[in-house]
Amino acid sequence: MIKANNPKLTSWVKVDKNSDFPIQNIPFGVFNTKEDSTPRVCSAIGDFVIDLHNLMSLGAFKGINLPENVFANPYINDFMALGKSITRNVRNRISDILETGHEFSSLSEQFLVPAKDANLLLPVKIGDYTDFYSSIEHATNLGIMFRGPENALMPNWRHLPVGYHGRASSIVVSGTDIKRPKGQMLPKDADQPVFGPCNLLDFELEMGFVIGKATNLGDTISTADADDYIFGLAVFNDWSARDIQKWEYVPLGPFLGKNFASTIAPWIVTLDALQPFKLKGPKQEPEVLPYLQYDGEKNYDVKLEVILETPSGVQKTLSNSNFKFMYWNMNQQLAHHTVNGCNINVGDFYASGTISGKDETSYGSMLELSKAGKIATEMPDGTTRKFILDGDTIIMKGYCENNGVRIGFGEAVGKILPAD
Amino acid sequence: MIKANNPKLTSWVKVDKNSDFPIQNIPFGVFNTKEDSTPRVCSAIGDFVIDLHNLMSLGAFKGINLPENVFANPYINDFMALGKSITRNVRNRISDILETGHEFSSLSEQFLVPAKDANLLLPVKIGDYTDFYSSIEHATNLGIMFRGPENALMPNWRHLPVGYHGRASSIVVSGTDIKRPKGQMLPKDADQPVFGPCNLLDFELEMGFVIGKATNLGDTISTADADDYIFGLAVFNDWSARDIQKWEYVPLGPFLGKNFASTIAPWIVTLDALQPFKLKGPKQEPEVLPYLQYDGEKNYDVKLEVILETPSGVQKTLSNSNFKFMYWNMNQQLAHHTVNGCNINVGDFYASGTISGKDETSYGSMLELSKAGKIATEMPDGTTRKFILDGDTIIMKGYCENNGVRIGFGEAVGKILPAD
Repeated sequence: MIKANNPKLTSWVKVDKNSDFPIQNIPFGVFNTKEDSTPRVCSAIGDFVIDLHNLMSLGAFKGINLPENVFANPYINDFMALGKSITRNVRNRISDILETGHEFSSLSEQFLVPAKDANLLLPVKIGDYTDFYSSIEHATNLGIMFRGPENALMPNWRHLPVGYHGRASSIVVSGTDIKRPKGQMLPKDADQPVFGPCNLLDFELEMGFVIGKATNLGDTISTADADDYIFGLAVFNDWSARDIQKWEYVPLGPFLGKNFASTIAPWIVTLDALQPFKLKGPKQEPEVLPYLQYDGEKNYDVKLEVILETPSGVQKTLSNSNFKFMYWNMNQQLAHHTVNGCNINVGDFYASGTISGKDETSYGSMLELSKAGKIATEMPDGTTRKFILDGDTIIMKGYCENNGVRIGFGEAVGKILPAD
Repeated sequence: MIKANNPKLTSWVKVDKNSDFPIQNIPFGVFNTKEDSTPRVCSAIGDFVIDLHNLMSLGAFKGINLPENVFANPYINDFMALGKSITRNVRNRISDILETGHEFSSLSEQFLVPAKDANLLLPVKIGDYTDFYSSIEHATNLGIMFRGPENALMPNWRHLPVGYHGRASSIVVSGTDIKRPKGQMLPKDADQPVFGPCNLLDFELEMGFVIGKATNLGDTISTADADDYIFGLAVFNDWSARDIQKWEYVPLGPFLGKNFASTIAPWIVTLDALQPFKLKGPKQEPEVLPYLQYDGEKNYDVKLEVILETPSGVQKTLSNSNFKFMYWNMNQQLAHHTVNGCNINVGDFYASGTISGKDETSYGSMLELSKAGKIATEMPDGTTRKFILDGDTIIMKGYCENNGVRIGFGEAVGKILPAD
């Protein structure tokens, strides 16, 4: 077992039992403060952000081969690129330092920043971003809406993890406001498109993984080796303008209906931290081709929640889903993505696609929750929603829990502003 | 008129009349040599590469506000980001220095490197890459093959420049060998896919433009302003594995059928240099929505050629096309791409999609030339081609010509190696 994952560890920092950031998590992110606007790499414990550059200045990482300014960095890419033998040592060391009784507790003011004073920034410089479509429940729900129950799943769906390239430039960190996009839409029964603010604005509940190790063009990654390349995971909202998407997407896929913005949570939780939460994925039938077969447990039990907050400030949970529902796991996604020799880089981001479960309360998009706009959800303030309205805020969260340890992902939050 | 474009300029460097790089071109690229492996920014004149860092050391750019190491750089991004008011001055100044009679001719050994000794590298650090589908002839040819002549163009095609996000990591510079990709394909009349090397390997003749000025999330770019953001253009080969693409692309678009590699020519020819070659584009019917309307001439007369060289070393021209055929111009592409607020960055690359003309000799892919594999092309060595075979080299070139001035784009060359 990885040392930092030990459920018996306790910290000299007080950590609430519902905190996302116990001593067993040690995620990575980037922050600055009002007093010091320089972005730097951080971790988290309880209600504190850990300034890793300051911690390093105290000699905390002695004996680990770290470049001097690796944490004085606006992104965690350089850190991830050091490789798991080093990043794992760093995570274990941070955990050592935070453990009850460690001498560094007396120096805490030099490296702990109250979370309320920290401005969390986009943690990763994302090179290429790919979005998969790997929840069978989501793909089936959408297929039924568009093509009827007989043809819900396309013939390729059970044979390969369908995916497409997304837009990296417009991935923003949690807390960034999102303007309602404008675009072309084809009104019902019209034969000419109109231009205007999108009417059917939606979220997509996703998780994504960040690459910590590159390949060269022509290389492939097996399902067995994929873990070496996956540094960590984040909660992700793939905002979608359904009416723009519907008109544009044939035959080359989603484009402006997606690329106006996507929201990523500020914390990358390491794959290492998630090892205690592995479980078996759904049975895949028919049997997949050899390069997609895998051994062991490659799904992860991450409880996910989507909350809508109205402009009046009331909240309602719209969905409770779970990352474990994924039909195609991350190892299969990465094996598939590289089987043709496509090279990957440190900082690449690979999202799951909308994560829906079987139960209607676990659907990961309003398109599914509202049955394509037929059913309205009542909010506690008396208003109703079929899709997202201006002024609404979408909050996504995730956490794992077992053996009394709760590993959380923080939040991916975005508020919708009216179109210009 | 931009000074460097003056057709009357002549250089003290001997330039063949068929050279791509007369004094009126002054493209930008990146190179190194066997003696000095450090990549640095360059231009070209005749059969020489111009080492711009060395030229700057000689005081050539005095009076232009350039950061000291802007040319000691593995990419031209930092240079482009200075803005057109500066990059235009640099291009004019290089042209001044190369003009007949200039005193720097005596220093030529310090900044001119024979092209045969220069190793041209990937010129741009590409952030996001988008591929459009903007040739009506290509879209119609493909549509007829897949859906018959009545439904050849999708209903959205004449209303918006259809595009999709591509893979930036696997864009390689001309001269890089490409391994035939493996992947899933559905054999004819089969109901289960098979895995193996792709059988239907194709090129796509494209041009693309590079962004020199960024926007913020939420900003839009009008067709009138788009020129300010387009630094320059390059010839581009969007290699395509047709059998992989056909099986995977529904419903989210091309993925592994494209992302194993794309080849870009090493020279970015500035939009400034292309101003003398503007002309009117095809009439767009029905009239496009206001945000896609534009004034003036926004198409460019660039003659394009695709040559196949067999393993035995014989060449045959497969296609003569022209960038002027584009139904949707670059200004419309950029206006569309940003109308929803999608932000762009310096170094982004936007490709045209396959450029086919009306005439069969102008088709920009083997899929079209061979009518989906029905017609074989005879090569001078007696072999035939419906698609690309192992050991074949595809060479793409482009140039503009009028008033006795010929502005060329260099070559995008790639040789296909057998799958592992």
